[in-house]
Amino acid sequence: MEKIKRNERLAVMTQVLTAAPNRIFTLGYFCDMFNTAKSTVSEDVALLEDTMKKFHLGRLETVTGAAGGVRYRPVQVGGPQRPFVEGICRKLMDPSRVLPGGYLYFSDILADPEYVSGMGKLIATAYYGTPVDFVLTMETKGIPVALMAAQALNVPLIIARRTTKVYEGSAVNISYVSGNGSIETMSLSRRAVKEGSRALIVDDFMRGGGTAGGMVALMKEFNVTVAGICFVLGLENPTAHMIEGEKCLMLLSDIKPGESYTVRPADWVL
Amino acid sequence: MEKIKRNERLAVMTQVLTAAPNRIFTLGYFCDMFNTAKSTVSEDVALLEDTMKKFHLGRLETVTGAAGGVRYRPVQVGGPQRPFVEGICRKLMDPSRVLPGGYLYFSDILADPEYVSGMGKLIATAYYGTPVDFVLTMETKGIPVALMAAQALNVPLIIARRTTKVYEGSAVNISYVSGNGSIETMSLSRRAVKEGSRALIVDDFMRGGGTAGGMVALMKEFNVTVAGICFVLGLENPTAHMIEGEKCLMLLSDIKPGESYTVRPADWVL
Repeated sequence: MEKIKRNERLAVMTQVLTAAPNRIFTLGYFCDMFNTAKSTVSEDVALLEDTMKKFHLGRLETVTGAAGGVRYRPVQVGGPQRPFVEGICRKLMDPSRVLPGGYLYFSDILADPEYVSGMGKLIATAYYGTPVDFVLTMETKGIPVALMAAQALNVPLIIARRTTKVYEGSAVNISYVSGNGSIETMSLSRRAVKEGSRALIVDDFMRGGGTAGGMVALMKEFNVTVAGICFVLGLENPTAHMIEGEKCLMLLSDIKPGESYTVRPADWVL
Repeated sequence: MEKIKRNERLAVMTQVLTAAPNRIFTLGYFCDMFNTAKSTVSEDVALLEDTMKKFHLGRLETVTGAAGGVRYRPVQVGGPQRPFVEGICRKLMDPSRVLPGGYLYFSDILADPEYVSGMGKLIATAYYGTPVDFVLTMETKGIPVALMAAQALNVPLIIARRTTKVYEGSAVNISYVSGNGSIETMSLSRRAVKEGSRALIVDDFMRGGGTAGGMVALMKEFNVTVAGICFVLGLENPTAHMIEGEKCLMLLSDIKPGESYTVRPADWVL
């Protein structure tokens, strides 16, 4: 086999690692790929780690032990993430987004691949320190961000539904009180989730935490631990507070007719 | 500024380009990033193009003209994609997936970041030759794949809803006949779509094309051209055929009680 230059090896390793964030690749994997010695791959990894640091491309980490190797985490890609979130806040502060009833239109942001990819990485970054087996969201608007967070965490996404669907098989249904006080139902396929696993709840908007509270109750039915709850946007002063320990990427002041409102990144967003 | 080695430049360019598929980066963008001459970046691009070809990492393309530069497309990443799709087909042929009524459980596949990322790239690959301004899907199950296709095409995702939602603003509603013959409604926010643009419809399952037919009708209301229709899974022998020109990634034979069924990749999947 033709010798592969370091140039090429670094480009290939970059793509393989960044395409599968949070997955551990053994050095042997790259030795086989390049038909090269472990010491050479070790040097490559060290070089790549420095380059990624220098150019703010995320973090390359060496994991020791039997299941050890190297893994990539998209932490602070492009530098500090606060300006990225501030950019979204500015878009959300466009008064033409205010809808009758004081709602804020942000479905476009929540389905834009570039925005949701960035937000998903930020959410994952906040939970890399916590064991998470899957990301849970409730249909519909939070799905894209939740998917991107799941991808960055290297775990599956599970989607709870509003009603039981025949194509989900037998399901667990619960009732919960939504943010606006109405009684809603939530349904999740029995086969979707393993008992004893750990869920990260990701959703688009928190008014009082009603829907997330429903998801917490749903997880209890499955004997699943909730490892964290994260929203894209939350009220600065929630109308109620039916959950605890949640994070929001952005905070929205009350929207009152004729008055201006603000959207700002949460303090933990650096 | 310290001189940046080719090693490093190639690693950085790989990440920047692969993280933003189908987006054109000018050579000047990288000249500024590395404080280096255009001729050097040109050589880097040529090298990277060869490496990506050699290692099946996708296609790096030079685009000439005023808006020219270099763009990355995740075409045949990892080699031929047929084995990847065959792997999904094998999973779907597990008889424990058959639900009462002849439905097939595949929500888990449709929300797995690795599967939907691969399938999204395959769908995008099939439409790189066609101008597409956005991807349209109907909630819920197709959203992850549609998002990944949108990301690979570098366009937004638009999600049609089953009912009008207050937080979507004023909306266009249509009625359509679903695959199982019932009358359903579909709603899309007025502000979601620009007149005169071009939509690629992506959805999870085609029985007779009813829902997709609804999306086609909905696009007509917005004066939007349908550039293509692609499903993750379709019936080998559809119960009806309410649309035309569609593609499916995988084809499912009829599921009859007690009989075995097959799922196979479509012929266009190479």
